[in-house]
Amino acid sequence: MPAMTDVPIGLIGGTGREGTGLARRLARAGFSLVIGSRSTERAREAVAALGDAAGRIEAADNATAIRTAGVLFLCVPFSHARTTIEAHQDAFQPGSLLIDVTVPVSFEGGKPTFVEMPEGSAAEHVRRYLPEAVRMAAALKAIPARMLGDVDAPLDCDDFVCGDSAEARDRAIAILQRFPGLRAIDVGALDAARVLERMTLLAIRINRRYKVHDTRFRLVGLP
Amino acid sequence: MPAMTDVPIGLIGGTGREGTGLARRLARAGFSLVIGSRSTERAREAVAALGDAAGRIEAADNATAIRTAGVLFLCVPFSHARTTIEAHQDAFQPGSLLIDVTVPVSFEGGKPTFVEMPEGSAAEHVRRYLPEAVRMAAALKAIPARMLGDVDAPLDCDDFVCGDSAEARDRAIAILQRFPGLRAIDVGALDAARVLERMTLLAIRINRRYKVHDTRFRLVGLP
Repeated sequence: MPAMTDVPIGLIGGTGREGTGLARRLARAGFSLVIGSRSTERAREAVAALGDAAGRIEAADNATAIRTAGVLFLCVPFSHARTTIEAHQDAFQPGSLLIDVTVPVSFEGGKPTFVEMPEGSAAEHVRRYLPEAVRMAAALKAIPARMLGDVDAPLDCDDFVCGDSAEARDRAIAILQRFPGLRAIDVGALDAARVLERMTLLAIRINRRYKVHDTRFRLVGLP
Repeated sequence: MPAMTDVPIGLIGGTGREGTGLARRLARAGFSLVIGSRSTERAREAVAALGDAAGRIEAADNATAIRTAGVLFLCVPFSHARTTIEAHQDAFQPGSLLIDVTVPVSFEGGKPTFVEMPEGSAAEHVRRYLPEAVRMAAALKAIPARMLGDVDAPLDCDDFVCGDSAEARDRAIAILQRFPGLRAIDVGALDAARVLERMTLLAIRINRRYKVHDTRFRLVGLP
């Protein structure tokens, strides 16, 4: 079995703010990456912009990223999550892991608003459209994208990871534990995303009220 | 104007686990209290059980507590919240403040489950039945009741306070700031309770999974 860092991690929609921040953080942690985008050209530009970090990072279209990587982060804006998954049903490999990091918050009239989903959360919404043979976890929901990209700053907080199986959560946690200053906590089944995604909204509300930028959470009482 | 600690704080349904823990904590912080219960006799027993802390604590039925105190904590089990409020419509004083600390979590088949309310949260549900002239805040949603009662232990966490006006939140925060080791954070309008109440469920899930008892939250990134 190859070392974990030899298996490339794919980023679906990896050219946006969340995706490039996450790419920086993953590259710094030693992972090989495939940055996917609807346009390979855009993916190439994103890889080039990563500069020194770009050594082990490839650019691809989303379908190729999905076919190539054993672990995938879903980094598209939440409003594109379903169509992205639906458009690539055949590319997903059985046994691969999708880690959803989308945030279902819209800014209606400038006011941050939780986008209610019939499934209860964005993660469960994604799960509904994902091929059954693909495992799924949700993570990094309440970690500010800007902090992910600021790789010299320790994250100094906890991440709450849920997923559709213990194995899915363990695989996600093993990756996230390599981020300096981040403790990844297993919070069980995927429906925990109903809490985690709303915590993002809470952090955004606090950021605005107190004129700060990077509030995030730490759990007290867990040794 | 009398000092804040001279105005008694009332606890509606103050004889349960949440109520007695909160009573200990408030008494230690120097507040005068009125412990309310459906039965004055039960309230008297609860006051007696507070022992040394009981000097400035009176027992009363809920109606008397509601009429007497300028600030009220709603400590009944959530399943009794609506009927308790409805039964005492005439006792509430205009301009008084109700601080909802109820937690809408049930244990169905032993599994902690969020009780979905048509209003979105327990706090908004309570607001709907509360007389309009009573102001309202929600607080202490994710602070373990056991820790509230363990008055020698600093809480060492943050509390997230929402409410229907800045004035309501400020009054609640001024009280909570007197609890050692607790930072009270203003998170805005009452609908933030949709997040806060679910965070309680998250903490319960983590407690069970990791076999701990008192997980709670701290916000990182707010100076």
